[in-house]
Amino acid sequence: MSSTVGQVIRCKAAVAWQPGKPLVIEEVEVAPPQKMEVRLKILYTSLCHTDVYFWEAKGQNPVFPRILGHEAAGIVESVGEGVTELVPGDHVLPVFTGECKDCAHCKSEESNMCSLLRINTDRGVMIHDGQSRFSINGKPIFHFVGTSTFSEYTVVHVGCLAKINPLAPLDKVCVLSCGISTGLGATLVAKPTKGSSVAIFGLGAVGLAAAEGARIAGASRIIDVDLNASRFEEAKKFGVTEFVNPKDYSKPVQEVIAEMTDGGVDRSVECTGHIDAMISAFECVHDGWGVAVLVGVPHKEAVFKTHPMNLLNERTLKGTFFGNYKPRSDLPSVVEKYMNKELELEKFITHKLPFAQINKAFDLMLKGEGLRCIINMED
Amino acid sequence: MSSTVGQVIRCKAAVAWQPGKPLVIEEVEVAPPQKMEVRLKILYTSLCHTDVYFWEAKGQNPVFPRILGHEAAGIVESVGEGVTELVPGDHVLPVFTGECKDCAHCKSEESNMCSLLRINTDRGVMIHDGQSRFSINGKPIFHFVGTSTFSEYTVVHVGCLAKINPLAPLDKVCVLSCGISTGLGATLVAKPTKGSSVAIFGLGAVGLAAAEGARIAGASRIIDVDLNASRFEEAKKFGVTEFVNPKDYSKPVQEVIAEMTDGGVDRSVECTGHIDAMISAFECVHDGWGVAVLVGVPHKEAVFKTHPMNLLNERTLKGTFFGNYKPRSDLPSVVEKYMNKELELEKFITHKLPFAQINKAFDLMLKGEGLRCIINMED
Ligand SMILES: NC(=O)c1ccc[n+]([C@@H]2O[C@H](COP(=O)([O-])OP(=O)(O)OC[C@H]3O[C@@H](n4cnc5c(N)ncnc54)[C@H](O)[C@@H]3O)[C@@H](O)[C@H]2O)c1
Ligand SMILES: NC(=O)c1ccc[n+]([C@@H]2O[C@H](COP(=O)([O-])OP(=O)(O)OC[C@H]3O[C@@H](n4cnc5c(N)ncnc54)[C@H](O)[C@@H]3O)[C@@H](O)[C@H]2O)c1
Ligand SMILES: [Zn+2]
Ligand SMILES: [Zn+2]
Ligand SMILES: [Zn+2]
Ligand SMILES: [Zn+2]
Repeated sequence: MSSTVGQVIRCKAAVAWQPGKPLVIEEVEVAPPQKMEVRLKILYTSLCHTDVYFWEAKGQNPVFPRILGHEAAGIVESVGEGVTELVPGDHVLPVFTGECKDCAHCKSEESNMCSLLRINTDRGVMIHDGQSRFSINGKPIFHFVGTSTFSEYTVVHVGCLAKINPLAPLDKVCVLSCGISTGLGATLVAKPTKGSSVAIFGLGAVGLAAAEGARIAGASRIIDVDLNASRFEEAKKFGVTEFVNPKDYSKPVQEVIAEMTDGGVDRSVECTGHIDAMISAFECVHDGWGVAVLVGVPHKEAVFKTHPMNLLNERTLKGTFFGNYKPRSDLPSVVEKYMNKELELEKFITHKLPFAQINKAFDLMLKGEGLRCIINMED
Repeated sequence: MSSTVGQVIRCKAAVAWQPGKPLVIEEVEVAPPQKMEVRLKILYTSLCHTDVYFWEAKGQNPVFPRILGHEAAGIVESVGEGVTELVPGDHVLPVFTGECKDCAHCKSEESNMCSLLRINTDRGVMIHDGQSRFSINGKPIFHFVGTSTFSEYTVVHVGCLAKINPLAPLDKVCVLSCGISTGLGATLVAKPTKGSSVAIFGLGAVGLAAAEGARIAGASRIIDVDLNASRFEEAKKFGVTEFVNPKDYSKPVQEVIAEMTDGGVDRSVECTGHIDAMISAFECVHDGWGVAVLVGVPHKEAVFKTHPMNLLNERTLKGTFFGNYKPRSDLPSVVEKYMNKELELEKFITHKLPFAQINKAFDLMLKGEGLRCIINMED
């Protein structure tokens, strides 16, 4: 057992002191895990748009100084009181939303929106005692979505940790802790059948993961829609068969897709966060059986509008959150899909950087270069 | 075999000569069935709102003179060329929408929106030759939704006829040919589980049939919402456990329901045709797992509006048409549900009239009295 158990750990973390300013690698103190908490050593973390949104903090509640990061993989260092499912040495993926296994959502077969551990972007402390486990010279540094993976060690509620196969390479499966699972799961919620047609709106990491889900499901046509044509080249690796840029047409893209597919696609998945794309994604599915799944997080004032006949003609519209996966119950089997070579993750990983260069990962994302940048915490 | 085979039949029919004017019982000529058509003797018909809408023809394309009627039960008199599934003497329910068994919709497991025989309220002729089979002194009288059951004999496409158990009492099961199946099927599309909560918007025949579906599924709470409190008394017979009149509250009814049910109902079914009720029906379902099903036929200009977060929080929204039943494949088993005493139909039948008094049935419906009035064609 590690000699650090029950002790404060001093380690490096990338601290966001102010909105939009480069992170600073600092030495921080990480307190031992309390009731139902786990302290883990992060080996790899990647950067997701949500980190950038809360770092920029435009239109968000600014919570600073803060340790960002939520897409990662690590190893349990020690566990707090009441934790029985994990022991030091277990390999885990931290997740921004949790599974308490006790609330109505956790008990429902359908929902993963745990009442206790559902994502909370405003909270910067642990739920057990309303305190932070991070400090610098005794002054608290705030947590982010219960994960704060831009630190060599972090403390996470046990309900936000998926115990995974210890043979899984952490520098690959770390991307499953947010964006890739979100997109992949969204397509599985849409349940395309073998040979069906699927339209995907948005060619970011989430949309491409949705395309990967369609490929795995055996869709025969994967039609990708994006306003940014430069994304199309990369998307070919993901089994996408056709591309549509709404800018190339004068009519609404849902009509373009209906013409391409004799009335509409069987399934659609929206991964842009833009309300126009949400409406198009819904209206482009075939009447009688079409299912549209929304993933993108919209503006606060956005309104979804459609003529109700589009619904009455037997279309289905639903939204997902983290691909409907329950982090503890479902994520281990997504890792197994990768281990069984069903799911490809390598093609999502376009960049690698040592922890010291984490700000470069922010630059890449802001420039829209690549998909996922893996940050090696030990490098 | 009937001596009328291949002959024109002269019989009584209630003809709508002009919008909103009482029907007139006339002697009409009914031509023999052509390719893929069946001529049947109607024994019982009931009146549905859709008959009244197209009789009033407000905001509708007026098609007159016309023989209305689409909720009925009858016996096959003779069949046209190519009809192999039905023989004279078979008991059938005519349906306003059909099942060709050959198009993409009929081949889909999910859809019942047959491309060939989908409801068409503007067409007053048979699809085979664009002609009417009804005439008076050689002048054509138009058909209505392919059924025209306000006639002792009518001609229907074989794809619009469900062959049912010959032991089923036709004066009861005739109500399954439209409204009751629509409401019942909508609830089954929503798939409430045993012990779940279901909100039903609208307490007409369709809404009460949806409540009957919820009772059959074993819902523990059936919450009925109607603006007309006089409907509440009747609804008690349908296992409804709670009533909400939106007029009694200053806040939106979806909030009232969320408070009654700790966050929302498990399922909702909208049976009003009013856009406000459609939006409320969607927003009153629980996040994580709630499913809302729309049934009501909206105004042409209606717009469904909601904040996309209501979807992203894992709610599902869908619409149905004729309860998603495929007329030929599925309706016989709905009749069996009645025969097995799973489904109660008697409580929907509030009035009975002889054919000669069919205009009284229109009066009852216009006054909002009762649910279904059965018209005995032989009385
Ligand atoms: N629900 C969840 O659990 C969850 C988790 C992670 C991300 N997300 C959301 O998923 C969305 C996608 O994330 P990402 O990281 O892939 O983003 P991204 O910015 O990398 O990709 C979005 C793509 O959408 C395209 N786009 C924008 N508007 C469009 C339109 N109207 N039509 C077609 N294409 C359009 C852009 O050009 C871009 O290529 C975001 O809204 C993000 O917030 C949701
Ligand atoms: N989709 C189909 O296949 C199909 C078939 C038959 C009927 N329908 C439709 O189903 C709907 C119901 O049919 P019905 O015959 O039972 O009608 P109905 O007029 O008998 O009943 C409708 C009820 O809704 C109530 N209502 C109206 N607005 C409301 C609101 N905002 N909130 C709550 N209650 C409200 C009315 O008071 C009334 O009691 C109609 O729109 C009809 O066109 C659809
Ligand atoms: Zn929970
Ligand atoms: Zn993320
Ligand atoms: Zn068909
Ligand atoms: Zn009807």
